[in-house]
Amino acid sequence: MSREIKVGLLGFGTVGSGTAEILLEQSELLKRRSGLQIRLARICDKDTETPRGLELPPGILTDDVNVLLDDPEIDIFIELMGGLEPARTFVLEAMKKGKHVVTANKALLAMHGREIFGAAEEYGVSVGFEASVGGGIPVIKAVKEGLIGNHLTTVMGIMNGTANYILTRMTDEGLDYEDALQEAQRLGYAEADPTYDVEGIDTAHKLTILASLSFGVKVELSDVFTEGITRLSLLDIDFARDLGYRIKLLAIARNTKHGTELRVHPTMVPESHLLGQIGGAYNAFYIIGDSVGKVLLYGLGAGKMPTGSAVVADVVDMARNIASSASVQTSSFGIPFKSLGSPDLIPMDSLVSRYYFRFSVLDRPGVLAGIAGILGDLGISIESVVQEGRGSEASVSIVMLTHEAEEVRVSRALKKIDALDVVSDRTVVIRIEDLQALEG
Amino acid sequence: MSREIKVGLLGFGTVGSGTAEILLEQSELLKRRSGLQIRLARICDKDTETPRGLELPPGILTDDVNVLLDDPEIDIFIELMGGLEPARTFVLEAMKKGKHVVTANKALLAMHGREIFGAAEEYGVSVGFEASVGGGIPVIKAVKEGLIGNHLTTVMGIMNGTANYILTRMTDEGLDYEDALQEAQRLGYAEADPTYDVEGIDTAHKLTILASLSFGVKVELSDVFTEGITRLSLLDIDFARDLGYRIKLLAIARNTKHGTELRVHPTMVPESHLLGQIGGAYNAFYIIGDSVGKVLLYGLGAGKMPTGSAVVADVVDMARNIASSASVQTSSFGIPFKSLGSPDLIPMDSLVSRYYFRFSVLDRPGVLAGIAGILGDLGISIESVVQEGRGSEASVSIVMLTHEAEEVRVSRALKKIDALDVVSDRTVVIRIEDLQALEG
Repeated sequence: MSREIKVGLLGFGTVGSGTAEILLEQSELLKRRSGLQIRLARICDKDTETPRGLELPPGILTDDVNVLLDDPEIDIFIELMGGLEPARTFVLEAMKKGKHVVTANKALLAMHGREIFGAAEEYGVSVGFEASVGGGIPVIKAVKEGLIGNHLTTVMGIMNGTANYILTRMTDEGLDYEDALQEAQRLGYAEADPTYDVEGIDTAHKLTILASLSFGVKVELSDVFTEGITRLSLLDIDFARDLGYRIKLLAIARNTKHGTELRVHPTMVPESHLLGQIGGAYNAFYIIGDSVGKVLLYGLGAGKMPTGSAVVADVVDMARNIASSASVQTSSFGIPFKSLGSPDLIPMDSLVSRYYFRFSVLDRPGVLAGIAGILGDLGISIESVVQEGRGSEASVSIVMLTHEAEEVRVSRALKKIDALDVVSDRTVVIRIEDLQALEG
Repeated sequence: MSREIKVGLLGFGTVGSGTAEILLEQSELLKRRSGLQIRLARICDKDTETPRGLELPPGILTDDVNVLLDDPEIDIFIELMGGLEPARTFVLEAMKKGKHVVTANKALLAMHGREIFGAAEEYGVSVGFEASVGGGIPVIKAVKEGLIGNHLTTVMGIMNGTANYILTRMTDEGLDYEDALQEAQRLGYAEADPTYDVEGIDTAHKLTILASLSFGVKVELSDVFTEGITRLSLLDIDFARDLGYRIKLLAIARNTKHGTELRVHPTMVPESHLLGQIGGAYNAFYIIGDSVGKVLLYGLGAGKMPTGSAVVADVVDMARNIASSASVQTSSFGIPFKSLGSPDLIPMDSLVSRYYFRFSVLDRPGVLAGIAGILGDLGISIESVVQEGRGSEASVSIVMLTHEAEEVRVSRALKKIDALDVVSDRTVVIRIEDLQALEG
């Protein structure tokens, strides 16, 4: 019957080994389910020595990417080396040679999506990127195929397992931020340099890809307002809990008649909401469509085998297309990428939200009056205030909740407040999300 | 470019109207996303008079199914009339004429799957059935494509929105079963005859389809142990809550090295587990795969537009295959249906679980001793007992929790207990699921 589909894999690290393990050890399962013989023909990595606990067919491993690129029999090129360069160059080169590409590289797609998807359309190949968002959770497939009859209005969620693990440990075990981070690093959930995860950049990469796909526009990374979790303290966590909330690093994309909202920041989510219940290294995607209503997808958003599972799903889909010599080339983005317009962005300044502030101030008379005065002048109405006991070096925390206020006024107020002599550290801001309204 | 794909729709009721609405009103969106012109060419229903609030192209509506079946230009036949006959005959006829079929008819597939999928393979057409399980939630696609690289070990969840709505209202509002059912009927969540929903039959239909697909075996409806929720009382609900549980009508399919477990019954689920948090008319599917780990999909499992959303997703997938003249005919079940073996069933008798019993007994001395004696003789160890105050007609409730016990011993014990003169009604049994172990 159909010919064998040959696959080349670039990058034999964690996800690369997981992918190779599934392709090699489950090849009978895949054949039974897809009717196709999918063969991992080549693996390229600069490190060809370190054992990965896998029995490889002899001669499969190389440190020369050209062995993959120059092999005309390789139909599918899997890029799992990560980073922008040389991944970008190799991916473009593979497409130029007529190979379809599967990648888990969210940074690459978020930063160079226009070029990558443009090249795919130019060369008539497809790009599979299920593994770039949500690890093993089939969220790209759900948005692109399963919900294709819907205008999606909201795509939000917890898209970074490292940040969620840290916040969960702070909430459940009372660890402070540094201890939780170190634990995450010890367990392999966080990298030595955790910046991308804890500063929200990785989440913003994923939101860029997901929002582009969901709303049929080309979102740039710079369109996404991004704040991380590094300044959160146990005080904030405990306060949130007492109020019936959980603090989550939430990614929110909304498509309204007023425009598109794109933001990533620590958010207070009601404990009773499903998103408030997502603990540990898990991810959850909350999608609202005009026909389907609310849908939530939950699972491990990272890791060797879950991400490998997503890579393999893309490989099989692609293999089916290749084997059927599909004459209609479906665009990787559904809509041809070059026809995607830019989003009509709602500036962050016009966001209306309730806010949680934690002011770090010197313990002197009149401080609260000064802060309250600035907020009052800008029309920001205070719902409640708690002044905590003495902190270190005579610095104390004042925690405040506001009624609904406009972000532009809040940033103006905080600029003034943070410039006060009595304010000893930058104010911590957490938005309190009215999920009911979002789900409207 | 590609030709138009023509669709015929049989059944213009609730889901039929939702499907027609999406196909007619979102045809531009679908064209933009799929690159295909998908045209709803014919709708057939015996009622051609009742307005459905849709502007239909002139002449599209007919009460003669042969107009659809005999039109060689109709590529895709959507069956949304429901029921076993004549739906079965029409679907087989459509396939015989070379039409691909999309259906939401879980009863048909659960009862006649062998015949339907067999005919599809014989005639070289495909059957889309996303809408038959989980309404708008793309769970079939997730299992069939998104998780294709996984051996799935567990597929379980809340698969009937009506039953879940009733249980949620009992739990949250203290309604008794009859009142909650009547409310569900008033709101259109339950039909006039709710038997299928509340007796677990609809859930068993869905589990039959899902387990067949997930484990690559042909499950028969009769393989599924099925119990409904009609005998649950507020007392049970409250008891469960006090113990930190929620009662859910759970469908459980497990594939272990000892065999396959298939059961549908009211189950105590820890409140802290995601499945314990699924409220109202929502469904949730909890899937465990060897690579991906745990995945949960949540959304509305029924209703006009959510189910329409799933039907349309199948139509678009099928249209893509037709337009690409895919030469590899992917089997609707992944694996050719005729090659599916039968599951190696684990008899329900060998289940080991903790149990909740509510005995209805006459308020006489020695009753508890009699019950406890029977349990003790069969080696069933009691964890705790509560005797509630007087009920009606001198009948009282004794509520009991057991340690782990074998189902075979439990059924033997209950047979004896229910035969006692002092027992005034059949004992209510709820299994307490150790989800930790299931997730092992």
